[in-house]
Amino acid sequence: MSGTTTLLVLDAEPSPRLGRLTGRARIVHADETSLAAHLPDADVLLVWDFASRAVRDAWPGPGPRPRWVHTASAGVDHLLCPELAASDTVVTNARGVFDQPIAEYVAALVLAMAKDLPLTWRSQNARAWRHRETRRVAGSRAVVVGSGPIGRAIATTLRALGVTAAVTGRAPRPGVHGPEDLDRLLSRADWVVAAAPLTPETEGMFDARRFGIMQPSARFINVGRGRLVVEKALVEALSKRWIAGAALDVFEREPLSREDPLWDVPNLLISPHMSGDTVGWRDSLAAQFVRLYERWEAGEPLPNVVDKKRGYVPGH
Amino acid sequence: MSGTTTLLVLDAEPSPRLGRLTGRARIVHADETSLAAHLPDADVLLVWDFASRAVRDAWPGPGPRPRWVHTASAGVDHLLCPELAASDTVVTNARGVFDQPIAEYVAALVLAMAKDLPLTWRSQNARAWRHRETRRVAGSRAVVVGSGPIGRAIATTLRALGVTAAVTGRAPRPGVHGPEDLDRLLSRADWVVAAAPLTPETEGMFDARRFGIMQPSARFINVGRGRLVVEKALVEALSKRWIAGAALDVFEREPLSREDPLWDVPNLLISPHMSGDTVGWRDSLAAQFVRLYERWEAGEPLPNVVDKKRGYVPGH
Repeated sequence: MSGTTTLLVLDAEPSPRLGRLTGRARIVHADETSLAAHLPDADVLLVWDFASRAVRDAWPGPGPRPRWVHTASAGVDHLLCPELAASDTVVTNARGVFDQPIAEYVAALVLAMAKDLPLTWRSQNARAWRHRETRRVAGSRAVVVGSGPIGRAIATTLRALGVTAAVTGRAPRPGVHGPEDLDRLLSRADWVVAAAPLTPETEGMFDARRFGIMQPSARFINVGRGRLVVEKALVEALSKRWIAGAALDVFEREPLSREDPLWDVPNLLISPHMSGDTVGWRDSLAAQFVRLYERWEAGEPLPNVVDKKRGYVPGH
Repeated sequence: MSGTTTLLVLDAEPSPRLGRLTGRARIVHADETSLAAHLPDADVLLVWDFASRAVRDAWPGPGPRPRWVHTASAGVDHLLCPELAASDTVVTNARGVFDQPIAEYVAALVLAMAKDLPLTWRSQNARAWRHRETRRVAGSRAVVVGSGPIGRAIATTLRALGVTAAVTGRAPRPGVHGPEDLDRLLSRADWVVAAAPLTPETEGMFDARRFGIMQPSARFINVGRGRLVVEKALVEALSKRWIAGAALDVFEREPLSREDPLWDVPNLLISPHMSGDTVGWRDSLAAQFVRLYERWEAGEPLPNVVDKKRGYVPGH
């Protein structure tokens, strides 16, 4: 590759620390409004502002397109438009950076719900000493929907706590159940964890029927993508006590507006899409991109290549 | 033993399910006010109301005393008066019942603090979307003060989450640090967990000096006994930001009154002495006593015998 490679960065504050790339590539920063104008001149696009859907919107425009797009996120649903999917452009993601942090976050939610910490802390606010019996985590059953590295890390961490954790994916393989087992596993689970990519197959998969077959004692956790869940169906399932509780880190629309009725649904815990974001996460994402860039520059094959038809990185 | 064994139960609601003992022993129920009158006729005393200090008060009175006292708790500080300690009466405790539940509870608190769940849920109440970076648990360092089965179970569970966990006890032994290592371990720990019995050596051990040597990022958790901690010193350490946070499940005086200033100390999480109390715990405690009773009735040696001088069950 020549020294005049143009690296276009769809930015969000703070900008990535591209360290070793400084002076090696021509780095151009764009925001949502200027992205379309810069796309034809870019060899590489780094989607640093992974909350933006600007790539999806701008990609179908006129002119040449980058040969490589990297997103600083595990999910790629925010950028995969049909034109990008049909093109020769290689898309890579941040596979690996979020696995362990998200697994810990799910363990935190599972334990917090088992030990009823939300009510304990509400009671503290009310200066009320309310002793209750809580639940054991060891011996309980979880099903993790999503068999990528995040889903498998969640299962591993829950198993370390004595939970019997099954993983389901798009197709059965060793250690992973296929879709044909999903409903049976859901109907027996104490914990249902959504950690799947958003694809046409997974969109809205947690609907009224699936909440209906869960146990009344079951708790549902979504750390994948908001649109895996039909939020209205979840609210109904909670209000009718089809399930005992839920925790959402992702939503149909983010950020939630102050007016959103979800904020005060009983037995629903809300966090602002932060399950994978531990101290230093942005530096990890930037360092990962720099490593991939150096491989690309050297003409070596890239890891983390997204199957643009399926909408995720396939394989183990 | 004759069929006329009198089993005195210092009661609290709900009463223990003594199952197989019904009709085999003469079971007499006492409360705090009637305990003294019944003590001289009792062969065995079951301290079911483990929050009561009535045994300590009533024991020095006139007349014969039970030959065996069992408490449905891990700690024995609430009953060990000098007269009982000096007597031939055997004291046993509920060793084993609380280990895993308390270990899970500590893991819940560690993860909740690492992931900043308290602020997330306060933000939810305020309908505020406040994204933050949180901390990894794996790779952090804990010191567990207390080398009995509860302390060791806590360390094992934290290690399963990738935490480097050291255990300290009254004397060094394989896998357990002696008191000479305590201050050094405290000064490097991200998590300090108190799970020691209350004895003259441990009372007030977490004082201003010890909070002073902890890291500003350290978090302190007490699931042992309230009086391990000088509460005033902890409040000062939190207000001066000597440490980052604390969670107390036990207190100098329980239950906390509504007027207690502890309820709203910033960065202090309060729970009502429930860390070990998972669904079915009372049945487990009752079943354990029945097993011990049958051994005692058969003249077999009892497990869980408390060293009344030390104030806990010694050994592994």
